[in-house]
Amino acid sequence: MRPFAFFERLSKAFHDYPSLSKILVVSTISGGGLIVYSEANPSYSNNGVETKTRKKKVVLLGTGWAGASFLKTLNNSSYEVQVISPRNYFAFTPLLPSVTCGTVEARSVVEPIRNIARKNVEMSFLEAECFKIDPGSKKVYCRSKQGVNSKGKKEFDVDYDYLVIATGAQSNTFNIPGVEENCHFLKEVEDAQRIRSTVIDSFEKASLPGLNEQERKRMLHFVVVGGGPTGVEFASELHDFVNEDLVKLYPKAKNLVQITLLEAADHILTMFDKRITEFAEEKFTRDGIDVKLGSMVVKVNDKEISAKTKAGEVSTIPYGMIVWSTGIGTRPVIKDFMKQIGQGNRRALATDEWLRVEGCDNIYALGDCATINQRKVMEDIAAIFKKADKENSGTLTMKEFHEVMSDICDRYPQVELYLKSKGMHGITDLLKQAQAENGSNKSVELDIEELKSALCQVDSQVKLLPATGQVAAQQGTYLAKCFDRMEVCEKNPEGPIRIRGEGRHRFRPFRYRHLGQFAPLGGEQTAAQLPGDWVSIGHSSQWLWYSVYASKQVSWRTRVLVVSDWMRRFIFGRDSSRI
Amino acid sequence: MRPFAFFERLSKAFHDYPSLSKILVVSTISGGGLIVYSEANPSYSNNGVETKTRKKKVVLLGTGWAGASFLKTLNNSSYEVQVISPRNYFAFTPLLPSVTCGTVEARSVVEPIRNIARKNVEMSFLEAECFKIDPGSKKVYCRSKQGVNSKGKKEFDVDYDYLVIATGAQSNTFNIPGVEENCHFLKEVEDAQRIRSTVIDSFEKASLPGLNEQERKRMLHFVVVGGGPTGVEFASELHDFVNEDLVKLYPKAKNLVQITLLEAADHILTMFDKRITEFAEEKFTRDGIDVKLGSMVVKVNDKEISAKTKAGEVSTIPYGMIVWSTGIGTRPVIKDFMKQIGQGNRRALATDEWLRVEGCDNIYALGDCATINQRKVMEDIAAIFKKADKENSGTLTMKEFHEVMSDICDRYPQVELYLKSKGMHGITDLLKQAQAENGSNKSVELDIEELKSALCQVDSQVKLLPATGQVAAQQGTYLAKCFDRMEVCEKNPEGPIRIRGEGRHRFRPFRYRHLGQFAPLGGEQTAAQLPGDWVSIGHSSQWLWYSVYASKQVSWRTRVLVVSDWMRRFIFGRDSSRI
Repeated sequence: MRPFAFFERLSKAFHDYPSLSKILVVSTISGGGLIVYSEANPSYSNNGVETKTRKKKVVLLGTGWAGASFLKTLNNSSYEVQVISPRNYFAFTPLLPSVTCGTVEARSVVEPIRNIARKNVEMSFLEAECFKIDPGSKKVYCRSKQGVNSKGKKEFDVDYDYLVIATGAQSNTFNIPGVEENCHFLKEVEDAQRIRSTVIDSFEKASLPGLNEQERKRMLHFVVVGGGPTGVEFASELHDFVNEDLVKLYPKAKNLVQITLLEAADHILTMFDKRITEFAEEKFTRDGIDVKLGSMVVKVNDKEISAKTKAGEVSTIPYGMIVWSTGIGTRPVIKDFMKQIGQGNRRALATDEWLRVEGCDNIYALGDCATINQRKVMEDIAAIFKKADKENSGTLTMKEFHEVMSDICDRYPQVELYLKSKGMHGITDLLKQAQAENGSNKSVELDIEELKSALCQVDSQVKLLPATGQVAAQQGTYLAKCFDRMEVCEKNPEGPIRIRGEGRHRFRPFRYRHLGQFAPLGGEQTAAQLPGDWVSIGHSSQWLWYSVYASKQVSWRTRVLVVSDWMRRFIFGRDSSRI
Repeated sequence: MRPFAFFERLSKAFHDYPSLSKILVVSTISGGGLIVYSEANPSYSNNGVETKTRKKKVVLLGTGWAGASFLKTLNNSSYEVQVISPRNYFAFTPLLPSVTCGTVEARSVVEPIRNIARKNVEMSFLEAECFKIDPGSKKVYCRSKQGVNSKGKKEFDVDYDYLVIATGAQSNTFNIPGVEENCHFLKEVEDAQRIRSTVIDSFEKASLPGLNEQERKRMLHFVVVGGGPTGVEFASELHDFVNEDLVKLYPKAKNLVQITLLEAADHILTMFDKRITEFAEEKFTRDGIDVKLGSMVVKVNDKEISAKTKAGEVSTIPYGMIVWSTGIGTRPVIKDFMKQIGQGNRRALATDEWLRVEGCDNIYALGDCATINQRKVMEDIAAIFKKADKENSGTLTMKEFHEVMSDICDRYPQVELYLKSKGMHGITDLLKQAQAENGSNKSVELDIEELKSALCQVDSQVKLLPATGQVAAQQGTYLAKCFDRMEVCEKNPEGPIRIRGEGRHRFRPFRYRHLGQFAPLGGEQTAAQLPGDWVSIGHSSQWLWYSVYASKQVSWRTRVLVVSDWMRRFIFGRDSSRI
């Protein structure tokens, strides 16, 4: 879509100023700046033949990682997609901590959602929030974020054939009193912008006359609650912002600033390798960031935050600003929907391995608002045995077992994970081990009890996927590809055989591929944990971080902007104007 | 100040990655990008010898054009400058209309005020609004924009030796009912940002279901009140934004959008040459912008705006958004101060030609909150005659007259303007003409009546300076230079002789040099009116506009950002994410 706009402008400009072409040649050769266009989404034109059948209406709730990658991938003109979200853009959330301190500008990390969808998919967008999902009547009820008139808010409903729920989650306050009212969260672009102006405000307030040292210190005391990647990255960004930029403009504030990180667990960055955790804790200590481990926040008021140590001691610290980044909670609309479909006691929507919401038809859920309920092998063991035992002999020959095994591995990924964790190369090793343990003869046949004992441990490998953008993005892409091939796969199913039913599953189940994770620690140092437990810490992984985050941008516009923001920061520092 | 930060970063980077130096050489040669540093403010170091005398305290209210250029120029370490403003940055206001549509980002047009002052001047900043000036006790009373605690706002007072008032003006609603509540203004960066999101909101609202065509049309009806440069530029920016960018994302909205410009006078851009006015009106008609001349707004409610034609007919139009840009009004703090010093019936603070507030000691006012009360020749005619008539003979010889004439021209710039307007080359022509008209002999001596009749017309040339950033910036520079040379000029005054007193004035009076004015009309076309009534309209003056506005940026940071914003807009179009 964009490239056309660009070429239009360009040709118009050439028409108006012929000398421009010379400049263009020169600048293309010297800088290569215009080559950026080589990637851009291919735009397919409609074949002109309008199919007479009514298009299936897909309603997509949410424009975060899951929703955007679904939209970016979906490439089948037989759908009409209706996107509903209170935000008309996709935000590259991993850069939000950078936005809080102006290392990257807010606008550099967002892309209008209308630019993201492919051109041959009929897509329309409604800037509204869904407040009720009614699976019975196949409707969602929405409310415009702003009043259509000054009197009240506008409500409407939308029908769907397929509903894709990708609304994400909200910050979790754990119902701790005062958190909602006094803390900043860091989920949305607006949050990051608010944090940025609050930081500047704190410095301006502390510069006013008539305050004693203690009051100034309180105002410049920044508390971060939660030692996860977001909290840690924000703390280090803030430390850099203060020490690289603000102390030059507010020299008196230098000795008054304090950053404190409260973490309820025994370490920060617990999801990372121990080496990274240790490095981060040491670096923070060197940097003067006060890391208080084992500190559980119990109360917040407008000036003080109270935390309890593991020993039960409650200490109260005055603060200027708190950023709360402890985990995610369920959005009201999802809570309400879960109650309707009998999942009321859960934290997130349960889906099967094909991202279909359990107990509903044509409703899919992905990203932070959902969790995949991986079917356990042991629950299905009888059916598995029956499926494999084609001759109904009551025992499985190795041949029978091998025939069904690749389907089993497809359907229950924990089997493969278990084999890997035990260092086994194939299912035969597992069976042999089981038979040896059971003391049975090395028979070539297997009965159900032997199968059970062979597989009894595998379900321990079932793990919930982390609530990250990486998971959500992969789910979005997966689901869009399923939608693209819905008809094809209806006829030629490509999934594993149905264990408790007939035939095969249409699609292979969703499988997450972890590509690694970064934890920027400030001072141009980043910790990276890559697949295979490969750990890298320091400047080199900072450059890796730069390149990965630049390449993962959703459009060339944001890519260019983010990179130029980094360059700007390097040359001019971060801006501290309070806008 | 900034260059040091940059070099620090650079040397740190070189230390960490030696290979960077190669890249730097290559990029410097190919792009020249790093040469940007050649200008930056020179930073003088203190001589180390601390003068024992107490520094004079200059309190500067405001960080707009006047305040910023005062700060940028002041270069005398014997002052301690206390800047007080609700905004801790200087905003390049001529680009605000561009900010409303995202052609330029808000952050690209602002620079922290602490970066603007020279390093050898001791400067501190307070983010607060002055609400009372007390010339008796030499104090200003201020209020922090935000509460220091959540309970209330923080008030404090600041002493001064010299007070420089540069608070600017506010939008003038002419007390028309409903304007304050329902219209957008365009004075501050925040206004521009609000307008930007309101424009996007309007398109999102009009895309919601359940609205009829009429309602959608109302939501997409943008009304601009005021046909001055700001209103005209906003209307054309909006037109470009809608037609170049938004229609692609909101194709259904294309035929519903309407832009209307209401102007009370008979033409838009009345301060410009007639050719420009005509061109602009024709271009707007071609573009489909509805220009309603002679339309005086009489009432605004939340959905409709009522305007009266010259014939007295009142018509009411439904609207989606109004931008009000009709002129400037007085800020409450200035109104209150004017009452105190007996200027209660004025629109702006009256100063003399040296920018000193009339009737006050050591208080200066400049920019939009002040007007210069040019002393009239005819008021002083007796004193002038007496001063010139050194021999007390009752008549002036030509020699006597010539001796005093350059001082007269300095003190009363209208004399020169009058001569110019009549095509005369010197004062002798004027005297000759007067004598000829009086029918008096061509005597070589002049009596007071002859002098009066020669000069009786000159005061008609006294004109108020326009309320533009250009005037304010020149005044700021002028005043800072006066402050710099305060002691030197006390001993060796350089101004004209005092007509009604003894000796000479310390400084030459402020003299405005008009450098021309631009009116961007959209579609890469700009009208420029340069000194000498040189008029240029079209693409070439658009490029002139680009270069002038880039060169006038207050820092290299903003210069680079503004230019890269223009490039980004050219390549990627304007962003329409609602943040």
